[in-house]
Amino acid sequence: MHELYERDVLTKLREIGAKKILIQTPEGLKKEALYLAEFLRKEGVDVIISGDINYGACDPADREARMLGCDALIHLGHSYMQLNLDVPTIFIPAFAKVDVIGALEKNLGKIRRLGKRIALVTTVQHIRNLESAKTFLEKNGFNVSIGDGDSRVSFKGQVIGCNFTAAKVENDIEGILFIGAGYFHPIGVALSTRKPTLAVNPYSGDAIWLEREVERIIRKRWAQIAKAYDAQRFGVIVSTKKGQLRLGDAKRVMDLLREHGKEAYLIAMNYINYPSLEGFDFDAYVVVACPRVPIDDAENWRKPVLTPKEVELLLGVREEYEFDEIFGGERRKDEPLGISLKL
Amino acid sequence: MHELYERDVLTKLREIGAKKILIQTPEGLKKEALYLAEFLRKEGVDVIISGDINYGACDPADREARMLGCDALIHLGHSYMQLNLDVPTIFIPAFAKVDVIGALEKNLGKIRRLGKRIALVTTVQHIRNLESAKTFLEKNGFNVSIGDGDSRVSFKGQVIGCNFTAAKVENDIEGILFIGAGYFHPIGVALSTRKPTLAVNPYSGDAIWLEREVERIIRKRWAQIAKAYDAQRFGVIVSTKKGQLRLGDAKRVMDLLREHGKEAYLIAMNYINYPSLEGFDFDAYVVVACPRVPIDDAENWRKPVLTPKEVELLLGVREEYEFDEIFGGERRKDEPLGISLKL
Repeated sequence: MHELYERDVLTKLREIGAKKILIQTPEGLKKEALYLAEFLRKEGVDVIISGDINYGACDPADREARMLGCDALIHLGHSYMQLNLDVPTIFIPAFAKVDVIGALEKNLGKIRRLGKRIALVTTVQHIRNLESAKTFLEKNGFNVSIGDGDSRVSFKGQVIGCNFTAAKVENDIEGILFIGAGYFHPIGVALSTRKPTLAVNPYSGDAIWLEREVERIIRKRWAQIAKAYDAQRFGVIVSTKKGQLRLGDAKRVMDLLREHGKEAYLIAMNYINYPSLEGFDFDAYVVVACPRVPIDDAENWRKPVLTPKEVELLLGVREEYEFDEIFGGERRKDEPLGISLKL
Repeated sequence: MHELYERDVLTKLREIGAKKILIQTPEGLKKEALYLAEFLRKEGVDVIISGDINYGACDPADREARMLGCDALIHLGHSYMQLNLDVPTIFIPAFAKVDVIGALEKNLGKIRRLGKRIALVTTVQHIRNLESAKTFLEKNGFNVSIGDGDSRVSFKGQVIGCNFTAAKVENDIEGILFIGAGYFHPIGVALSTRKPTLAVNPYSGDAIWLEREVERIIRKRWAQIAKAYDAQRFGVIVSTKKGQLRLGDAKRVMDLLREHGKEAYLIAMNYINYPSLEGFDFDAYVVVACPRVPIDDAENWRKPVLTPKEVELLLGVREEYEFDEIFGGERRKDEPLGISLKL
């Protein structure tokens, strides 16, 4: 079980005078959510658990907390994201208890192929191991940069699915080393930076290169754009998830489409998926929300589904393929490890 | 296409000074939603369409409207439900353009088997035909009552999936005649009233008796209750849909379960479904939200799923099976036909 900092949580809740709280959790921390609920209940806190599946800090249940009469929200599994929240929210990231040095040591040969000057990034799970990883790599002759990132992330060197600013360091780096499991994050690193990217998995000890996968994705994206050439009626989709709501971007896309003689309708929805939209019968869709929806879910859509920047390519007002990153402002400080409380 | 009263809608929007609106629609009226959006856009109204699928007036997108900066919500396909809404909401029911007398005439023999004193109910789709149906039946010798219903419905004689108060008339009736398509509503009529119920479908001209289906459902419900006898850990589910939020009822269920030595956790969710809950690994669930979820969706749940009244049967504090109806207050007036505006 992941550490829950339940005593610290209780102290924070008492500090802010919260007597009734909502706990929100990703799929993988449901048992932890129940444990925390029971711990807090025994301490006299009235607890409701959100049953809605949560995929990120961009989707806080703060509105739900307020409508349920809760004084605070506890958001498990993700670090703090700067949003205008309806109730005080305690973000408790899940830090992995896995050593990363072993996997780095095993893959030193591959890492050397990135070059000598590298940027080092990871997800919040391994953020506490980033400094020791840097020290290890420097001892092995690398010049390691850890990017600040912008205010959409909580920590230096942290990446999330829609923001890879921490991978974009000022130094002239040759490649990027990502520490973590899975394809989702390192693909984003490579797609956003277009630099040689190696992902080292601290659990399996495996390392994967991302260039080929990214080239394949970009080819598929151009194929989506080509499929949309004859489209006349566009559904432009915004999200009602607080951290994905980009109304200004959507307005720009609507204006651009209309200037080019297309029909455009603005659609708002929570869980963006094709089956819910099928009855509208648009020729093509633009997702102005989570940029990963068009990229990772396109095969489930029967109609072309584009990002805002892909619409610009379609209409000929942009030439180079670019990832639809969601940027924050300047990041001034790391959020406290363990609990990030944002009032 | 259903009538949309678009001129009246525009007049209402101008009356309340709404310049930016959200349109919400059930699956079957998506084309109408697009038509209305285009009509209003040409009149200078800024329009967003909700892409989330909507199943009832109990699930208004008023919070979403507010967060999207809209001044008003247009809710298509359902009649007004008394709720504390975040923005002015125009409910536009979809009235069917189908004659009902032909189907009644064809089925007079069956209707006579209900008895002479009958109650007449329907859904909002056919509510405008209810008086002419009554007149026709009276000419054919029936004594016809149309119940007032409580404030959860908009019209005399109207039933919705969770409220059949309009079928409960004071007169000593022998049976209930439902006019409309499908099983969903007439099953509810029969389950809630436990009176002989005949459903006449004005589209197909068919008529179906509901007793057997209701007996089958009640047997299945007792089987669910039996399956929950050994359950120790209960997930008690409330809905974050505004018209299904029953926190008081949920608290009573939680207290009752705990008094009987069970563990109970309060879960809040929007779209209530088993896959989202699986990771919590409760022994049984209680849905204190839409009463139709346990009844109509139980086969998709791998664990027993009960209504609050079924929990009382389980714990031995109730003996007779009863439908978990959601009641309103006293209904004082019919909501205007066509557009029901609630500020």
